[in-house]
Order: sequence, then C-alpha cells, then structure tokens
Amino acid sequence: MSLLIKQGNIVTASENYTADIYCEDEQITRIGKNLDAPPHATVIDATGKYVFPGFIDPHVHVYLPFMGTYAKDTYETASRAALVGGTTTLIEMICQATSEQPWRDGFELWKGKADGKSACDYTFHQGVTRLDQETAPQIEEIVKQGVASFKIFLAYKGAFNISDEELYQTMALAKRLGVIVTAHCENAELVFEMQKKLLGEGKTGPEWHYWSRPPRTQAEGVHHLATFAEAHGTHVYVVHTSCREAFETGMAAAARGVNLKMETLIQYLVLDDSYTQLPNFEGAKFIMSPPLPTKENQDVFWNALRNRWVATVATDHAPFDFQGQKEMGRDDFTKIPNGIPSLEDRVNLLYTHGVATGRIDLNTFVDAASTQAAKLFGMFPRKGAIALGSDADLVVYDPNYRGVISAKTQLINVDYSAFEGWEIKGRPSAVTVRGELAAQDGKFVGTIGRGQFIKREPTHF
Amino acid sequence: MSLLIKQGNIVTASENYTADIYCEDEQITRIGKNLDAPPHATVIDATGKYVFPGFIDPHVHVYLPFMGTYAKDTYETASRAALVGGTTTLIEMICQATSEQPWRDGFELWKGKADGKSACDYTFHQGVTRLDQETAPQIEEIVKQGVASFKIFLAYKGAFNISDEELYQTMALAKRLGVIVTAHCENAELVFEMQKKLLGEGKTGPEWHYWSRPPRTQAEGVHHLATFAEAHGTHVYVVHTSCREAFETGMAAAARGVNLKMETLIQYLVLDDSYTQLPNFEGAKFIMSPPLPTKENQDVFWNALRNRWVATVATDHAPFDFQGQKEMGRDDFTKIPNGIPSLEDRVNLLYTHGVATGRIDLNTFVDAASTQAAKLFGMFPRKGAIALGSDADLVVYDPNYRGVISAKTQLINVDYSAFEGWEIKGRPSAVTVRGELAAQDGKFVGTIGRGQFIKREPTHF
Amino acid sequence: MSLLIKQGNIVTASENYTADIYCEDEQITRIGKNLDAPPHATVIDATGKYVFPGFIDPHVHVYLPFMGTYAKDTYETASRAALVGGTTTLIEMICQATSEQPWRDGFELWKGKADGKSACDYTFHQGVTRLDQETAPQIEEIVKQGVASFKIFLAYKGAFNISDEELYQTMALAKRLGVIVTAHCENAELVFEMQKKLLGEGKTGPEWHYWSRPPRTQAEGVHHLATFAEAHGTHVYVVHTSCREAFETGMAAAARGVNLKMETLIQYLVLDDSYTQLPNFEGAKFIMSPPLPTKENQDVFWNALRNRWVATVATDHAPFDFQGQKEMGRDDFTKIPNGIPSLEDRVNLLYTHGVATGRIDLNTFVDAASTQAAKLFGMFPRKGAIALGSDADLVVYDPNYRGVISAKTQLINVDYSAFEGWEIKGRPSAVTVRGELAAQDGKFVGTIGRGQFIKREPTHF
Amino acid sequence: MSLLIKQGNIVTASENYTADIYCEDEQITRIGKNLDAPPHATVIDATGKYVFPGFIDPHVHVYLPFMGTYAKDTYETASRAALVGGTTTLIEMICQATSEQPWRDGFELWKGKADGKSACDYTFHQGVTRLDQETAPQIEEIVKQGVASFKIFLAYKGAFNISDEELYQTMALAKRLGVIVTAHCENAELVFEMQKKLLGEGKTGPEWHYWSRPPRTQAEGVHHLATFAEAHGTHVYVVHTSCREAFETGMAAAARGVNLKMETLIQYLVLDDSYTQLPNFEGAKFIMSPPLPTKENQDVFWNALRNRWVATVATDHAPFDFQGQKEMGRDDFTKIPNGIPSLEDRVNLLYTHGVATGRIDLNTFVDAASTQAAKLFGMFPRKGAIALGSDADLVVYDPNYRGVISAKTQLINVDYSAFEGWEIKGRPSAVTVRGELAAQDGKFVGTIGRGQFIKREPTHF
Repeated sequence: MSLLIKQGNIVTASENYTADIYCEDEQITRIGKNLDAPPHATVIDATGKYVFPGFIDPHVHVYLPFMGTYAKDTYETASRAALVGGTTTLIEMICQATSEQPWRDGFELWKGKADGKSACDYTFHQGVTRLDQETAPQIEEIVKQGVASFKIFLAYKGAFNISDEELYQTMALAKRLGVIVTAHCENAELVFEMQKKLLGEGKTGPEWHYWSRPPRTQAEGVHHLATFAEAHGTHVYVVHTSCREAFETGMAAAARGVNLKMETLIQYLVLDDSYTQLPNFEGAKFIMSPPLPTKENQDVFWNALRNRWVATVATDHAPFDFQGQKEMGRDDFTKIPNGIPSLEDRVNLLYTHGVATGRIDLNTFVDAASTQAAKLFGMFPRKGAIALGSDADLVVYDPNYRGVISAKTQLINVDYSAFEGWEIKGRPSAVTVRGELAAQDGKFVGTIGRGQFIKREPTHF
Repeated sequence: MSLLIKQGNIVTASENYTADIYCEDEQITRIGKNLDAPPHATVIDATGKYVFPGFIDPHVHVYLPFMGTYAKDTYETASRAALVGGTTTLIEMICQATSEQPWRDGFELWKGKADGKSACDYTFHQGVTRLDQETAPQIEEIVKQGVASFKIFLAYKGAFNISDEELYQTMALAKRLGVIVTAHCENAELVFEMQKKLLGEGKTGPEWHYWSRPPRTQAEGVHHLATFAEAHGTHVYVVHTSCREAFETGMAAAARGVNLKMETLIQYLVLDDSYTQLPNFEGAKFIMSPPLPTKENQDVFWNALRNRWVATVATDHAPFDFQGQKEMGRDDFTKIPNGIPSLEDRVNLLYTHGVATGRIDLNTFVDAASTQAAKLFGMFPRKGAIALGSDADLVVYDPNYRGVISAKTQLINVDYSAFEGWEIKGRPSAVTVRGELAAQDGKFVGTIGRGQFIKREPTHF
Repeated sequence: MSLLIKQGNIVTASENYTADIYCEDEQITRIGKNLDAPPHATVIDATGKYVFPGFIDPHVHVYLPFMGTYAKDTYETASRAALVGGTTTLIEMICQATSEQPWRDGFELWKGKADGKSACDYTFHQGVTRLDQETAPQIEEIVKQGVASFKIFLAYKGAFNISDEELYQTMALAKRLGVIVTAHCENAELVFEMQKKLLGEGKTGPEWHYWSRPPRTQAEGVHHLATFAEAHGTHVYVVHTSCREAFETGMAAAARGVNLKMETLIQYLVLDDSYTQLPNFEGAKFIMSPPLPTKENQDVFWNALRNRWVATVATDHAPFDFQGQKEMGRDDFTKIPNGIPSLEDRVNLLYTHGVATGRIDLNTFVDAASTQAAKLFGMFPRKGAIALGSDADLVVYDPNYRGVISAKTQLINVDYSAFEGWEIKGRPSAVTVRGELAAQDGKFVGTIGRGQFIKREPTHF
Repeated sequence: MSLLIKQGNIVTASENYTADIYCEDEQITRIGKNLDAPPHATVIDATGKYVFPGFIDPHVHVYLPFMGTYAKDTYETASRAALVGGTTTLIEMICQATSEQPWRDGFELWKGKADGKSACDYTFHQGVTRLDQETAPQIEEIVKQGVASFKIFLAYKGAFNISDEELYQTMALAKRLGVIVTAHCENAELVFEMQKKLLGEGKTGPEWHYWSRPPRTQAEGVHHLATFAEAHGTHVYVVHTSCREAFETGMAAAARGVNLKMETLIQYLVLDDSYTQLPNFEGAKFIMSPPLPTKENQDVFWNALRNRWVATVATDHAPFDFQGQKEMGRDDFTKIPNGIPSLEDRVNLLYTHGVATGRIDLNTFVDAASTQAAKLFGMFPRKGAIALGSDADLVVYDPNYRGVISAKTQLINVDYSAFEGWEIKGRPSAVTVRGELAAQDGKFVGTIGRGQFIKREPTHF
C-alpha cells in the first residue's frame, strides 16, 4: 500500500514548501519534486491545498462514566468524527471508577474500549486519583505499558481530587519516571463550597456555573501545581487553561524556570460566558469546567497562541446529549454533565477563526493542533511531523471550502452542536492514517479497528 | 553541481529525523532514504552527525566606521570565519557616515563592500538615522531593492539617535511598507549623561562602562519602542536584549499584543560583567553595548530561550583589535570601540553551552540560530529550513568534536578572543552554501565572491 | 482672635478622637476636654460632626492662559469656592507665557494675581519648561523664595514639553536642591501625532479626545519619568494619574525603590469616558488631559486609595466656560480648553463617594485630601495636621448634610458643573483659615486678601 | 495619679509637633503648650527627645509549648523586657495543646498565665486549629470575650495545620464575626516533605533549615490564603512575611482588592540566611520559620516599609535557650525549637536600622511598630495613638543614646542574643503604661500584675 500526495503546500510547525510526499508501509519515505508512484498507489492531487501532519487532540473523553451517566460516543463514533475533522490521533484519560480496583483493570478497561474499534490512533493519560505505596507500583507498571503521562485533579472534591501528600508524591514519581503530569487546576474545596452557596441561594440555573468556579479558583490551582512541580523539577501540563488569571500564573511559573506548559481549548477561543445565559436552559449546552470565560479572555489566548506561549489547543471532548443528559441539571447546575463536544470541529474552527482571520500563522496552527501534543506526549516525530520516517498521518486541507456546522450532519453522537449554524472556512479534503485514506471531503472512508494504541516512552527527565 | 548528504540526523526548528538530502542547482530537491547520486555529485556521509539548516547571524557588522576607527574584518575575513563556524548568511547594517549623503550611496557603499568579496550570503538592515520628507522616499526606494528591514537607534546621542518625531514616522513608514524595525534600545540621553558623570568622577576604566548604561536604561528603551510600535501595529525587533529588566518589559509588551520580538546575543548567555573588571585593561576586550550583564541574567535568557520567548541569538559582531583599537580607550572607557567579536564562535558556543548542557533542545537551537532570523527577515523558507526548494545551505555538525577557541587559530581578523581557551563541544564538519562545500572541519574551502546579496520582500503588514 | 471648637470628632490622617480644640494667634494651642475660652472667642459646637485639618488641593489652576484663552477664575472666585468646599490651601502652577521672559517675572506675575486677593492660603509649583545654564540660576532663586516644587511636562509638544536633556538636568537640579518634581506624564509626540491622525480622519468631536491620548501614552510618560528620577534618586510626583496602566507603571517603579508618588483626581474617581460621548457637544464639558478613563479604572483607583498607594486626590482645576470657551473646539476637539472644574466639590465628592460608601476610611480621606499634600510639598505640620502649633485651618464637617451640586449655586466662575444634579452627602459647616471663620454652611464669610503665600523649604534630599 | 511630659517632640503615625502631654486616670487628657501639673504629678522633661505612643508587638509568644519543650519567658520576664524596650502592649496566640480540649479551657489557660503577672497590657489571637460544628460555637464565644482575631496555620502538618475545608469555614466565620484572620503562610506538605528529603540526604545542620522552606513555599501559602479570603471578603493578615516572593504575592492580592495586610519581622530586616551557616551549631540561634531570607530581601522590605506596603513590624518572639533547647536539634535541624528572641530589641533595632539610617521616617516607624497593630487589631485609638482619651502608654525616646545589645544585660529569659554586640542608636528613656512609669533608661520600674487584658471588639466587617 503506497500513497503519493502531489504538489501540496506542505506546512509543518516550522516550515512551508511545495513538494510531493510519498509514503510506503505506513510511513513517509520520500519528499521531493515530481515523484513517481507505482501503478497501484493511491494518488492525491493536493494542488492549491495545504498538507498538514495529522492533527492530535491531547484531551478527549470517549468512555466516560461521569456525574451519574456516560458520555455518548464510542470509539466508532468518536474516531470517525475525529478523522473527518482532521484529527488522526487522540489521547484519552484512563479514570477508573473506584480507586480500590486494581489499576491494571482500569487500563485494560479503557484500552479494551478502543482496541479493535477505533479508526484513528489513540493513547492514554493515566489518571492518578490515588497515590500511595499500594497504587504507585501499579501505576509504574502501566507506564511501562506505554502510558507516559499522568492526569491529576486538583478539582472534584470527594471524587478525583488528590491531597497535597499525593500531589507531592505524584510529582516525585513522575520526575523519577520521566513522565509529564497533566493537571486539572481548580481548587476543589472552593468549587465545592461555592456550588453549595449558590444552590443555597436558589441560584440553580446554568448561568450560575461560572460563579461556582471563577477565575481565581483556577489561578489558585495553577499556582499550587507550579509550586509542587518546582520542588521536583517535574514537567507539568495545565489542561484547559481558560482565563487570564490562570494563564498569567502559569507564565510567571515558566518564567522562573518551572517546567510548565499550558493547553487551552478551542471552546475558550471562540465561545464565552454569555452563551451559558441563553434562555430555556439552552445555556446547559455550554457548561464545562473550567467554565467559558468572559469574552475579553479570548484576546488573551489568541495572543498567547500567536506567541506560542500556550502549547496546545485541545477540546476536552465529553459528549453528553442535551435531552436526557444535560437536562439532568435542570434544577441544579451542578448536575449538568460537563462538556462541550468539539472533537469533530476543533481543527476547522481553529483554522477559520485563527488562520483565516490572520490571528495566527499556518505554522503556529500546526504546532498548537498537532506538533506540540506529539512532542510533549512522546509521540514525536512519529506523529506531529511531516518528515522521513514519520507516520503517514496527513491532512490535505482545502482552504477554499465553505460550509456550516450542524448537529444534523455531525458524526459525533450528540444531539446538539454548540456551534450550530457557524460557518467554517476550510475543511480536510483528505485524511490519511498511516498511509490509508480515512476521510474524504467530510465523509468517513476509513477502517474501524485499524486504529492503533500508540505506546509512548517517557521523555521528561 | 549536485550534493548528497547521507544518513544525517536532520534537525530543523521543529523536526528531527534521519534521511538523505539531495541537492541540485543550489537547492534541496529530494529528501528520502537511500537516495542515489550521479557519479559527479559531492557525497557527504553524515552518519552520527546532525544536519542543520545553515545558520544565520542577523546582527553582524563588517564595514563599520565607528568611534573614530574601522572594524577590522572585510567580507573576505568575515565570511570565511562565518562559514567555518556554521553561519551561511549574515545580515549587516547599512549606516552611512552622514545623514546628508544620498541614501542610495550608502546602500551602494555597503553592498559594494560585500559584492564579489563574500563567500557566504548576505543582506542588510537599512539604518534609519534620519527620517523626514527628504529621506523617506530614498529609504522606500532602498526597500524596493530588497532591504526589508530597518535599524534604528534610541541610543547614541548626537550620532545615530533619532527623535520621537522620527520614531513615530519610522513606525508609520515601516507599517505601510510591511517592514520590520530592528532597534537598539537604550535611552541616549541617560547614557550620554552617565558617561559624563562617571568620567567626571574619574571613573575611566572599562569596569565603569556597565554603570554608564545600567539595566533600566535599556528597559526604558524597550518600553519607549513598544509604545510607539503599538500606536501603528508595527512589527519591531529588539536587538541585543541583555538584561532581565529589558526582557520583562518586552514580554509585557508582547503580552498586550504588541508585535515585538527579541534578540539576545551569545555573549550575554556565556559572559558576564565580571569580565570587564579584569586587570590590566583586559576588561576592554569585553566592552560592548548594552554591556555584559551580571551573571544571574544568564539564567533569565537561557530560560527565555528554552521557552522560545526570545526569538534569536545573534552576535552584534564588531571586530576591533585589543592593540591599537580597544586601547584607544585606556584613559576613557567611552572611547573603547564597542564589540566582542563572536561571528565565528556563536554556533559552537550556543551548542556547547545550550544543547550539550541540556539547557535547550536541538530544535530550539536551530530555531534561535537560524530559522527565526529567516522568518522575521523575509528569507524563509529559502533560508532557515531543510525543505524542498530551500537553498542548500547545510551544516553537517559533529557533536563529538572537542576543541578549544583561540585567537591564534581563529579566522576573524582580530588580535584576541573573548573566549580564549574555552572548550567547545561540537563543530561543523561540513558547511555548504547553495550546494557548494564552503567549510570543512574548521577550514575554509569555499569561494570568495560566490556569496550573494539576498533580496528580501516585506512580510510584516 | 481666638477660636474654640468643642466636642468635635477630630480626624487626622492617622487618628480619630473627641476633644476640644483651642486656637490663638492663628495656631492650634491646646487640645483637651472641656476647654474654656475667653469671652471674645469664637466658639463652634462640633458635636456630632467631624473636625478635619483644612484640605489642600495640590493641583489647581487659577491664572491660566491656555489654548488661546484664559481660565475664568480669579483668586477671589477661586478662594471663595475653595473655602466653601473645605479647601484652605491650594497650590497653583507658575507657567510663564514664554520661556525667554525673565523667570522672576513669571513668579511675580503669578504671585501678584494672588497676593491681596485670596481668602485662602496658597503656594506655587514652579513650572520648569526650559532648563539650561541661563534659566537654572533663575529657577534656583525662585526656590529660595519658598517655591520648593517643580512642575514639568512630558506632554504638550511645542509648548511646555521638555527634552530628555532638560529632563535629566531638572532631575539633577531638583535632587541638589531637595525639591520634588511634579510631572505631567504623557508622551508629547504620540499625543501630537494621534491628534493629527484623528483630525485627518475627520474625527473631530470630543469623544475622540480619549483616543488621542490612550492609556499607554500615559504609562510611557510615567515609565520615562521614573527612569530619569532613578538616575538621581530625585523625588517625583506624577500628577493626575488616571488609568491602570500608568498606575501600575508607577507602582513598579516605587517597588524598585524609585522615590515616586502618585496623585489622582476626584474626576477620575467618579466620572468616566462615557461622559465625553454625550450628544450636542455636551461631552466637551468633560474634556481634560489625561482624558477620563473607562469606568473599570475607577475600581483600580479606589482600591489604590484605600491601600494608600496613591498619595493625593487633587482636581487640576482649570475653569473654562462651556459657552464661548469649550465651544472653541466645536469643530476640533484639540481646541477645547482642557479642564473639569472641581475645586469647590472635591472634598464633598470624595467624602460622598469614598467615605459614605465605605470605600475608604476617614483617616485615608484626610490623608489623601490634605495631609499627604502638606507632607510632600513641605507644609507639614503647619498644614495638613491637627496638632499643637499647626495653623488653625480646620473644617467642621457635617456628615448628615444632604444637598445637590449645581452650576446655579456654585461659587467658581464657570457656567456649568460636570456634576450637575449630583447628590452630596456631607458638607463643611464651618471652615477656618488660621483661626478665622471663612465659610459657613455653604456660604463664604471670610476675608478676601487674608490668604497668605506659604513659603516652603525643600525637604526631599 | 497624674503625669506630665513636657516639651517632647511628639511623633504619631502621621504627625510630629512639640507640646506637653498631660495624663490623668490612665488617659491622655490634655495636649498643649506650657501645661501645668498638680504638685503630686510625675513630671518628665522630654526636651530633645521624642514622645511616641507605646509600641505594640502583635506577634509574641510567652507561654509556648512547642517542639517538645517550653519557651523560656513568663509574663514577668517578658513584660519587663517588653517595657524596657518600649513595647507597652503585646498580642499573644492562644494555641491549645489538643484540639479536643474545650476551647474555653485554652483561653483560660493562656489568659491565666498573664493575668496578675504582666506589667504591660496584653491581648490574644485565638488559634483556630480545628474548625467544625463543635468548635465553631466555642470559638465564637471566645470572640465575645474580647478576642477579635484568629490565628491559623497553613504550615505544620499534623499539628496546627488546617484543611482547605476548615480554611474556607474559618474565612466565613471570621467575615460573619468581623474578625481578622492572621495566618502563618507556608505550605505544610512541602515543608514536611522537604524536611524528610533533606534529613534523608544527611543534611541535618541548621544551615539546611532554609532549604526545607524556601521562598516559594511561603508564596504558595500567601496565594492560597488570598484566594480563600477573596471568596468571602474576609480581612486577613499575613504574619512574618520574609521574602520577596511572598510579599509580591500579597501585593498582587491587595491590588485586586483582597483585604490583605502583611506583617514582617525585625529579624528579617536586619538578619539574613548567612547567620544560620555559622559554625559550631551557632546557626541554631538563628532558626525560625519562615527562615531568615537571603540578604537582598532586606531591601525589598525596607522599601516596602518606607512605602507603608507592609503594615507592621513584629517579632514572633519565641524564646528558647541555646543550651538545652536549641541543642535538641544538634543532629536534626527540624528539632531545633524555632524562634529568634527579639521582644526587647525590636523597637531599638527598627529605630537604629530604619530611622537613624534614613530608610524610613519617624511617622512610618510609629505606624509600623505601634499604630497599625492597634488599628488592625481593634485597639485604636485606645492604643497606638497620642490623642485625647487614648491610654497614656507613652515612650519618651532618647535618640542620642548609644549602647550595645548583649545577652548578659537583657531582661528576656534566654541565654543568648542574636544581636550580641550590636550597637543601638536610641533607647526609651521613659516608658509609661496607662500613666504609670514602667521603665526608665533600661531599667524596669513598673508593677508586675498591673498589666491588663485588652478586650477587643471586631471591626472587620
């Protein structure tokens, strides 16, 4: 099976140039002008189009028991949607139901949901929701299975939240293993108490969600994480940074030498708090945590992205239906399952609102949506690059396409779209996974089950 | 003429992978495995070595009438030294003697010093030392000749320094033309007065140079520049940022959306103020402006570099002999010609102290020493990249080389080295300019006169 | 002439307590319980009222040739209004018409406008609009006359603006003499150019004034001033700080040890930019420089005041009629004479919006509106204090008074009030100047011509 | 009993003036010139001397079971020393042994150690080391007894440290009661782990103490406290702020409107980390927490004090002998009882190193060492003021005295002085407590048992 992509405008995190790309045995094997292909090869004419490395979403939930229900996607629906949207690799979090369960079971459970059912490649962050002498060796074992990143929660009191003792030990373990620690940074106690307070005051609608976790709650989480990371020199990664306060706290830490990187989400770049105030409980569609910030924060993150001060743009994809699921919180915003599904639309929205508007350049677009995730999470240069020997995960992107996002046409398994009716300017016209065509002009043409678990080695020593 | 570099570990600003690179007609035409070359091709075995894009020094002086004397290098000596050290393109400043002279003459003068005499490629920043209705059209004309960047001075009262009115107009002109403005940021008046004050107090030795232009003088310059740039959205580039105060001022400006990039120098990363205090006037060897900062600033810049918050590492190469030239300031530090010659050693020092120590990664090394200069100054992807169609400016780099820097062996035309006896860990084993071998294992093997003037189009609209 | 104020709640910058105050020969001579007074003494019952030290407005214009016209007040009208509003001392700026005129003449001119015509005490800042070998000795002479503060302008290109050279020398001179330098901090060139640009675009209404001097213009001025002050250790005082950007720049300077204090104006605490957008050219009433900032800046300054990070609250009183004067700028906002008259209302507005709302405490109110001005400008403890030996400038203040501000009833000589119809909560019920009653319940009962020129010694060495 | 202090240079937090002060019935009743006194009155001639309000040390330990031993002072020794040093009121912390004990018992225990045994006045911060439904009402009851401030610990894992839940509830309770919360801000877990780590590496000497609680540990505590305070608008007071990192974090919180004040200690202003590195275990004399910072922090705090950005200068007096007590930690720095005894020397050291050097002015000296403590802790204007009706706690201070600090001559009950042999420039020549002379020229002449418990009302609503 070989693939030739001709005359594309190749764009990586650093470079752009026009060339042909030839791929064999799932990898890129030649880059040149006027390359020939054997008769049986798939040939794609990319004239007038961009060729990007396959995009990576480093923060996705597929199998997600959460708040008394389950996220709606399976790997079949999620990977189809991802690929049509240009995402060829996703990273999911393993987060087992109880922390007493053997941790190997959690790993197997999550991996089992993906193996044989995914059309795109995938890998996992290991949720570290308990760390002690019993769990540490089990977690270390899972790292050896190729899971070279942790996920911790400074939020969610009584659930995922870890203590300062566990936080310290997680930092120590991660440093020893060379593993990067991704962290949800909101102070658990403050959120818990502010939720209680708001509900006690009869403030139960989705518009109050923001006030249960205001910006300083998140800044506190980032400050706390940074202090503990600094004690060990551990590499940390702040997921879903949403507000200026948290961002500036993270920058200050990095400025003093803390190994800290930040992720923001496409939702924070294009949506804002006003959406949660829509009438008729429509606001529930826009509930996620950290909450959508006020509008002026968008400029902060676009500028940060432009300067590459934020590493990645992800989704925290967590698909819950409006009907039957989001509605569980009609009388209590704390019961609205969190998440604004965006796996399918991330790349197009970032291109439309970032590149097409001139806010960021093409290389930065690739860096944030693909390359940095590959680098930080130990998949580079296999993923995130267009280079000899890299996986032939390629996105031929048509910047002239014009279309509209709609729940009716989306492939993710949710009954609404937060971006209903929004125009997109650009779309993948061809997406390959390790050399095989998987999506074409908005249609999935790949192979369910062909997706592979990407084993990752620790790189953060 | 064709060239094949085999099995190198190719490193760009973003990627690293192993492949062969084939070049014809001065350009890279093919990247692949096991590439063949025609019998007449030059073949370099890069096994176990890095292949970097040719390095670019965006801040070099060759022809430099300054402080009553002339810098010692010619394009012959400078380009030989640059190439042996891995620098394949340099950017010089055109800075004519009097601002009354027709500006075209200045351009021709500087260009004439290089044309036919350089072994490496070169281009120019146009010094804007006077801006009014008479000079503006002349300067615009020079931009059309391919000089797409300006250099201004907030320092040097009575000489290069421009007024606020000229600064405003330069920003307006640059924005209109899409030209980036590089700027020497030190407040001219403060330097002038502090020099006078120190000399008046009998503080005449080189150790007082630092106190004539302390950090806040530079921070003031950066703040001033940023405010004027912001008024127009002009893209600006702070040359030779040396201290935390100036760096933080620049970061704050970028954080609020000013199009501001910063350059630091290799000297600031490895030397410090204590060198200027060497006895017997030895300190004069280490006099440049802004002055070498105190040692703790090194960490600031290494960390900034690691986070890519500083765009480039340059040299401000300005070669004056210790004997006869630096000595002009024996009784008056303000008469010591400024400059710490580093053109030849920049790449090796940055590799040795940055990459080999683990302070920065290989991609960041390439980004700072090559790619960013190409991008910011309109030479990308012709320069600064290893990609199809890029100029075959390549550096095969041997990380296992061990050697020592010495004035005795250096190719630049100066009678001392600021790094005398320093070990370097790594050296270019082969350097090509547009496909032709120009340096090999510390020896110049190129062709004087083959270097080209690189015409650049404005890109900063 | 003796005065006894009985049972008032005495409030100073630090203390509050209940006592009687007895004054003889213009000074406070006794503080105690149940003090007796001789039969001829004036006795004021202050039960249930505050007794404050006479308020000081350190930034007032009375005689002001400006923008082709003259401010409307004379010392008669201004001092009556000041006293009725609780201000017993004001500081005016001497700013002579041409810098060629002998400086002594300017001093005599300004002083002559006040001597014999003022009911309140007064003193001057010496405008330093030119500094060279010719003017320096003249200015030094005026300092010896008791004018221990300078006023400089980084704004007003072509008029008051001084060069960097003059700025440096002014700092040197002030340090040598122990004089504090008050400074109008806006970059002159930027304002000049932005005015030109806006007018060129047909943006001629008062609503464009803000955009001709946006926040960064002021921050630039403060940064510039601080850098030059730091070079000498000179004490500087930023007048009319209006925006977060300038304030934070000033705080950062103070944090690194610069002797920098900041003044804000009552207008910035209670008005905002939206007023300049009023229809029918009403916005012109609200034109001053720096311009009224956006509303969120009010919180910044109230908080700064509460923390005593801002030293003083002044007015920059500059009274121009709407009709005939403000109207000069109907077709060109740059021709609207600058100033929002507030001399009469400052104290009541600060009390109403600061103390009565709980934003600041009583001591801070006194500190900002009286004591700090006395301390910084060398009049303490003669002024700004309630202490033995202090001038008996006392304000018996009725916090229960309720009234409304109106142009119809005001004593300043202007045809409008920027606070028309605003309620005030509190008013002086008695105001004394050196022991003599000068205002009572909104009426002037003092003596024109009794006001004295306050000679001040330098204290800022 | 009446007292007349004649012709002193009276200095308060805001004012200075020369007058006589007359006191009857423990209070100041008259301030005037040439006051008469009845024949039996005590008359002190203060000509050429300062008269300050009695100084207040808001952070003192007398009865202190700590680290397996007891602090050496009793109220007899402590109050004598305090008075001789000019401190007329001290605030101690009630910190009961076990949190299960009825809280009333703790209050009675601590109060019982002082009642009838103290020569100076005293009051208490209530240690809140456990907060739940059981303890909250008991604590509220103690507040009603006149204890209007709390003390919490973010440090001391397994001992005083409170959880985030307790922290939130403490903030809520304090806000409801109008009580200010003083807080020891160091992250407990980090200190615990770093101690363990250092000991594990064989780093057992006092010089390692610093590294067990580096600056970021304290900044983390301040950031955490500020975030929780902000949620309720609670007034908080950071005790013993020692380093730039913590200070800047506190300032940033205050700048965004958090009701946060900071205390520093005299030790941090004049000592530094180098003292803990003295040989022969001498360093143990300088062990306290937070640890003495590096020397450059001194400038930060002197400048902060000068600008009144730090509210108070206290001691955290905790007197442990070198022999027998400090020595308990010979093989383990974590076992060295913490504290650098300074109760007796605080005022003289602050005068000597602050006022006499010109770093701070006299008013600021009074403000930081007396008035602010009175204001923040609800004793003003009874304490901290020289005003009618204030307690006649007065310090006649001789700025011309020259002496030397020595353990041999000190009154505190400790076998060493951290300031052995240091010169002091100035000393109280007379100290009165509510009108009675208690110390004279370095000698205690007061009455043991005359000291009163100062009941305080909440003021921080």
